[in-house]
Amino acid sequence: MELAELDRRYLLHPHSRVGSPMPPLIIDRGSGARLWDVDGREYVDGTCGLWQCAVGHGRAELAGVAAEQIGRLEFFSSFGDYTNEPAIRLAERLVRLAPEGIRRVFFTNGGSEGTETAVKLARLARHHAGQPGRNIILARTAGYHGMGAGSLAVTGIDRLRAGFGPLAPGVEFVGKPHGSDAADRLVAELEERIERIGAERIAAFIGEPVLGVGGMVPPPEGYWPRVREVLDRHGIWLIADEIVTAFGRTGHWFASEHYGMRPDMIITAKGLSSGYVPMGAVLIGERVLRAAEGVEFAHGFTYNGHPVGAAVALANLDILEREELPARARSVGDRLLRALEPLEELPHVLEVRGVGLMLGVELDRDAASVQDGARTDGVIVRAAGACIVLSPPLVISEPDVDTLAEVLSKHVIAAGH
Amino acid sequence: MELAELDRRYLLHPHSRVGSPMPPLIIDRGSGARLWDVDGREYVDGTCGLWQCAVGHGRAELAGVAAEQIGRLEFFSSFGDYTNEPAIRLAERLVRLAPEGIRRVFFTNGGSEGTETAVKLARLARHHAGQPGRNIILARTAGYHGMGAGSLAVTGIDRLRAGFGPLAPGVEFVGKPHGSDAADRLVAELEERIERIGAERIAAFIGEPVLGVGGMVPPPEGYWPRVREVLDRHGIWLIADEIVTAFGRTGHWFASEHYGMRPDMIITAKGLSSGYVPMGAVLIGERVLRAAEGVEFAHGFTYNGHPVGAAVALANLDILEREELPARARSVGDRLLRALEPLEELPHVLEVRGVGLMLGVELDRDAASVQDGARTDGVIVRAAGACIVLSPPLVISEPDVDTLAEVLSKHVIAAGH
Repeated sequence: MELAELDRRYLLHPHSRVGSPMPPLIIDRGSGARLWDVDGREYVDGTCGLWQCAVGHGRAELAGVAAEQIGRLEFFSSFGDYTNEPAIRLAERLVRLAPEGIRRVFFTNGGSEGTETAVKLARLARHHAGQPGRNIILARTAGYHGMGAGSLAVTGIDRLRAGFGPLAPGVEFVGKPHGSDAADRLVAELEERIERIGAERIAAFIGEPVLGVGGMVPPPEGYWPRVREVLDRHGIWLIADEIVTAFGRTGHWFASEHYGMRPDMIITAKGLSSGYVPMGAVLIGERVLRAAEGVEFAHGFTYNGHPVGAAVALANLDILEREELPARARSVGDRLLRALEPLEELPHVLEVRGVGLMLGVELDRDAASVQDGARTDGVIVRAAGACIVLSPPLVISEPDVDTLAEVLSKHVIAAGH
Repeated sequence: MELAELDRRYLLHPHSRVGSPMPPLIIDRGSGARLWDVDGREYVDGTCGLWQCAVGHGRAELAGVAAEQIGRLEFFSSFGDYTNEPAIRLAERLVRLAPEGIRRVFFTNGGSEGTETAVKLARLARHHAGQPGRNIILARTAGYHGMGAGSLAVTGIDRLRAGFGPLAPGVEFVGKPHGSDAADRLVAELEERIERIGAERIAAFIGEPVLGVGGMVPPPEGYWPRVREVLDRHGIWLIADEIVTAFGRTGHWFASEHYGMRPDMIITAKGLSSGYVPMGAVLIGERVLRAAEGVEFAHGFTYNGHPVGAAVALANLDILEREELPARARSVGDRLLRALEPLEELPHVLEVRGVGLMLGVELDRDAASVQDGARTDGVIVRAAGACIVLSPPLVISEPDVDTLAEVLSKHVIAAGH
């Protein structure tokens, strides 16, 4: 049977309709920011898959590192007192890279597990510190933090929540952080909400420095330092979800540092290993550790501290440093943003925005036709509702950026007809 | 700084005490059922890490497969209509291997994500089928299904739940399935509980064919077919958590088939890739698919269908077949069980039990001293409360089985003094 037919018969894809499998696009090979399907058609990768591929596809160096580690020790548990050298080296390196105040690392397989971990640790620390009622998590409309029951509960996107109830309790939402001049309104709303709930019931606030799935929305001017000040005043911790943003995508190693968040925990994944092997890490700050001091953290996923993932992540960080890819995300991202900004003059384009290699083009209508049209012209972008989401590998070349902008513009214009 | 000191300074280990890091045991190399630490000390691996390593450590064949796939396509998303050949081939193979009635595969990174997925899909399917109130999951005391908010909510082990509240709602527990003659009592309790809750409010029942973390407890005689019959009568689906048991550990490809469960979904992970790369799969049966027909499954973790994990899983299944490791789990497991059974005559040993290479020795006291003592004699076992849990790689040699039994017996005897 043909591959496409086998796919339609045996797989259930994420975000697909049950019982109505689509004709699949079978990706076969990758190199840098280019992909080829099984029929040999070539594509410019404007999405990086799902943001994960910071260093680009097909790095032979990372294949070698993975094979060497598998040959030595493919995996042993990190529960209790067991450990391994790649996990130790990676933890040290992450604490050194991370913003001030981060002290320890707890490993995961990916972003959702990271959010589950951060929420559990925040609540356990409060419980242990004699404040068991301090368990509410403040989250934001349009925020995306993962697909487990805990990470979905703090995700503020209705279409991802519908039909899965009852959802996990203990979460309250504040408004979507959108609009460069919205900080006054959002800070006032936050103050009022904390007042109404009672600070003594709130464990932590969770937010992405830049909204990802919610539309690639950079924060309003001055938003994060002011949010941090309000939270500090009420003793509420700040969890920065940097699953998408960490390791260079916004032009900085950590977006939370750039935006002055001073987070108490940072959730990372994706760019940590560029997706070559699933790997994530929760970076934990001193305030959380102090509150949790002495408690047994009865939590952990099997592949915590996976030696292969850790070895690949270390080599991936080497590449990011050696090739100065965070700086490249800034310069190439600026080029892409400038090339797309003229689209804002179209009546059906609401906004073109972005920071580093994290950009969004928001229409006044569903963007699926733009996604499909661009693909027929050899450019892969992603439609999230009315927004076209762009996040190419940080190694994308200037000519490929120009192709991406040109093809995308053509189909955005066509969507207006 | 020394590795051990770096570990203590920068890592937070799963199931460790915050602020009191232990002197770590740094595992450096593995081969078959043997491990070596960084000081060159050798160990017989009686745990397989956390049950994952079916084919044994250090398989060069799997290193080669991983490197080749990384060089070709390390990863691209499987969301929507994207896919890749290793994921397709693995899905087809899993459906062919699986018990009757299984139709499709949804990939994950591991067991917890599998439980989150199965619970979400069961509820969504009921919701879509016009029964939104049918969302309760029946679970069992001593059951273990993972550490995300949804998977923890169905885990019936109090010490893993304490301090993490509020937990996710919509879960009801029935009694621990323990005791070879307990089926009558458990089935009566189940009937009564369904009566009290109302079948029209219950989406599914979740259970491990053999309790894992809960103490390596095989099911009571006749338990599963009778449970299945009760559930069928009330239209309740059965989710088999085979995270630990699938792919040979109990001596069968799927324990649910051996015990006559006829599950509507099967959660797998661990043995699927032997842990060389994180990989899991939820196998979905026709009843669930029929109820969900037409609904968009707005769910999925980034690394769904990871080509490297899928390629490694395929090669891992090749090894399991070629070396007939499920049959080996039966014969070697019997040898280990027979060697340990005399311990039952000791007054402080409550039970020695097991199936295949999944065994437990239950004491009337905490078993930590047995775990620590065995390790000083070069044998790694795991204490879960009062139970010593054994799950060596399926390739363990007969002499290593004898060493494991001998060393363990010595320290179980010592624990009685």
